[in-house]
Amino acid sequence: MDVDIGNVLGTSPGLTTEYLDRLDDRVTDAHGTIEDGMATEEFGYAALTLPETADPDTIRTTVSGFEDPEAVVTVGIGGSALGAATLANALESDVDAYFLDNVDPDHTERLLAELPLAETVVNVVSNSGTTAETLANFLVIREAMDRNGVDWTERTVVTTGPEGNLRRLADRHDLPALDVPAGVPGRFSVLSTVGLAVAALQGHDVEAIIRGGADGKASLAGSLYDSPAYAYGAVAYALAERGALTNVLLPYAESLETFAEWFAQLWAESLGKDGVGQTPARALGATDQHSQLQLYRAGPRDKLVTFVRPRERADVAIPETDLEGLAYLGGGSLGGLLDAEFEATEASLAAADRPTVRIEIDRVDERALGELLYGMEAACVLYGELASLETFTQPAVEWGKRAARGLLGGGDFPEADAVSDKRELVISGDR
Amino acid sequence: MDVDIGNVLGTSPGLTTEYLDRLDDRVTDAHGTIEDGMATEEFGYAALTLPETADPDTIRTTVSGFEDPEAVVTVGIGGSALGAATLANALESDVDAYFLDNVDPDHTERLLAELPLAETVVNVVSNSGTTAETLANFLVIREAMDRNGVDWTERTVVTTGPEGNLRRLADRHDLPALDVPAGVPGRFSVLSTVGLAVAALQGHDVEAIIRGGADGKASLAGSLYDSPAYAYGAVAYALAERGALTNVLLPYAESLETFAEWFAQLWAESLGKDGVGQTPARALGATDQHSQLQLYRAGPRDKLVTFVRPRERADVAIPETDLEGLAYLGGGSLGGLLDAEFEATEASLAAADRPTVRIEIDRVDERALGELLYGMEAACVLYGELASLETFTQPAVEWGKRAARGLLGGGDFPEADAVSDKRELVISGDR
Repeated sequence: MDVDIGNVLGTSPGLTTEYLDRLDDRVTDAHGTIEDGMATEEFGYAALTLPETADPDTIRTTVSGFEDPEAVVTVGIGGSALGAATLANALESDVDAYFLDNVDPDHTERLLAELPLAETVVNVVSNSGTTAETLANFLVIREAMDRNGVDWTERTVVTTGPEGNLRRLADRHDLPALDVPAGVPGRFSVLSTVGLAVAALQGHDVEAIIRGGADGKASLAGSLYDSPAYAYGAVAYALAERGALTNVLLPYAESLETFAEWFAQLWAESLGKDGVGQTPARALGATDQHSQLQLYRAGPRDKLVTFVRPRERADVAIPETDLEGLAYLGGGSLGGLLDAEFEATEASLAAADRPTVRIEIDRVDERALGELLYGMEAACVLYGELASLETFTQPAVEWGKRAARGLLGGGDFPEADAVSDKRELVISGDR
Repeated sequence: MDVDIGNVLGTSPGLTTEYLDRLDDRVTDAHGTIEDGMATEEFGYAALTLPETADPDTIRTTVSGFEDPEAVVTVGIGGSALGAATLANALESDVDAYFLDNVDPDHTERLLAELPLAETVVNVVSNSGTTAETLANFLVIREAMDRNGVDWTERTVVTTGPEGNLRRLADRHDLPALDVPAGVPGRFSVLSTVGLAVAALQGHDVEAIIRGGADGKASLAGSLYDSPAYAYGAVAYALAERGALTNVLLPYAESLETFAEWFAQLWAESLGKDGVGQTPARALGATDQHSQLQLYRAGPRDKLVTFVRPRERADVAIPETDLEGLAYLGGGSLGGLLDAEFEATEASLAAADRPTVRIEIDRVDERALGELLYGMEAACVLYGELASLETFTQPAVEWGKRAARGLLGGGDFPEADAVSDKRELVISGDR
């Protein structure tokens, strides 16, 4: 993974090399803190040791009882789904991967109607074993299997913590079960059982993913000039301090669309606290040039645009044509067109003095994905250190969880009362 | 469509009713400007007359030659694809709809391998007839049909302007062809031929979509208190002026996920200019509570969160359970859980004094979608009036188009030279 920060120098907002040199002292200190955290497997920092602690053999063995499944459906939400989904949507496989990561009845019903239940593996993921959305969906899919004469205990694998409902369920029914690693928040768990079980079921090279993570770990160093992940984290932090409160992640590869969602969670939950934090905006090149570029180039100067692109990819030739004015396309390729669009967009933002960073990976494969995912996690942790944030917690989501539980009759929570106090000022279009 | 703006009063940033009363004078004036623009079919404003000028019979007749297609693939990008995709992904149909709205070779190749070409309608959409991405994909898919013995002239419908390549192609091969309406920018074209041809091919009730748009038009009025669309546009504008530079669109329905993308283009290209404009952030409830809510509740006070929810939907029961601590879920429904999550999230943001707006539609069906899409367009136009913007142009995307064309050898464009001048500062992870 290479990170090119040339296009944040002298832009508006922007940085100078003199500033980066001064900031680098703090990067050195932060790297020391991160290394200490890794050495003691401290909560959160432990995620950055996963390339060494993840156990691909156990993952593979645990799911080996499912022979040639047609599909795997992951029942999980947030960090329990996004890492696995990122890998599944980036890599091709004959085993279809689905994700039940919402409680929209329409969506769940459509999926159940579509799935070959007898040939499907249900991968239930919840650290606590009590996540309402996940357990509700699991109860629904389990009943659907019962109704269709499929023995759910033969089709279910569980990834959970040492205690709780899912663990007890696994024990009682002798389900294959994987352990959520200790000290690893969900959004940092892609290189563990949480992210890799689906990859194993899909036949991907799990070792290569972990090896990529190890490459990412090996490239951490005490200077932003020696470490692509830290270069990215430091620049994002410094630009946010200067008003770039939005970070647009713009991959130039459809297969990385879910990666942008994974990044959005990583960034938002880790850094969005204490009144600060960059808002991640997910986009996709070249499509969003025709949707968002106007804003990025001419709107408020509150953005960093982060390009992500593979250097190599399979290509498709564009046929020669006699259509007027389009001869220049013929004989080229879709990949060549995409590359030109990328370079033009990058230059277009630079010409308007808008800061951008270019992240390049070799190609979209297991190793490069492992390195990219690890790199973004390390970048995020460094940003959190530089901004003195509690990177690994997400206290602001608890209030809503208690309110929802109260509304559903799951206990007495004062937060639920606030719902009925809502101020209303309704403008109605009722005919 | 109802718009509830109660949760922008007294928040931070936030508004007062006294301010809204004063702002309403400007809404009255802006409504006058908009009405004049509609009356004279002025560029852009003409889009708001589509519920009267769209011609569903012509659309239906033009595509009636394709009998029982299995699939329709739209070749188009930006405003030529997003409206049709919004409808296609919101409504169920036996005819699959695909969108080739990027030039990723991997993506195009996967789609071509999957499509039953002999039973597929190719819907090519480009106003100018020269959009590079669209024409390149069309050349590729046309060749794939040739190669597979499918007569592409029997499977193609074109939607384009009065002149240009696509028009000449349609004339030469006697292809069914629809006219892009005059005076309607792509991002405002969903209620025209551009958005409705796919809906017709999918067997949706096109008249009901247009009727919904007409309902939206009928609810425009000279006061924000009488017009839900204007209430939304005015509040979004006023909050942006007060620092809410991000507008999170958070539908609580999976079927509205593409609607959030459509909205993102509408908002970004129309309002992102002159150094101002809200950045649209696409999200999805309840999923993104587990991904973004931490940031929305505890990050910078630079956001408006816009909820969109249907009041009615089909539901799925959650089976009773003896799982410990989960009895409260059993006997409920996924829809009930989703509603509780929505109310809890709304209250959670209100309790943190964060502004939110609630947009409610009856249900996700043709009529309600037409009303919602029209309403958001009218809200956007009003915002543009209040902010004195040129809502209907997108000048900042032209630079990049010229640069890309220059890079591809399609002419001599000085913008292409800027690409090679790029400043580099590469931090490499090369092993």
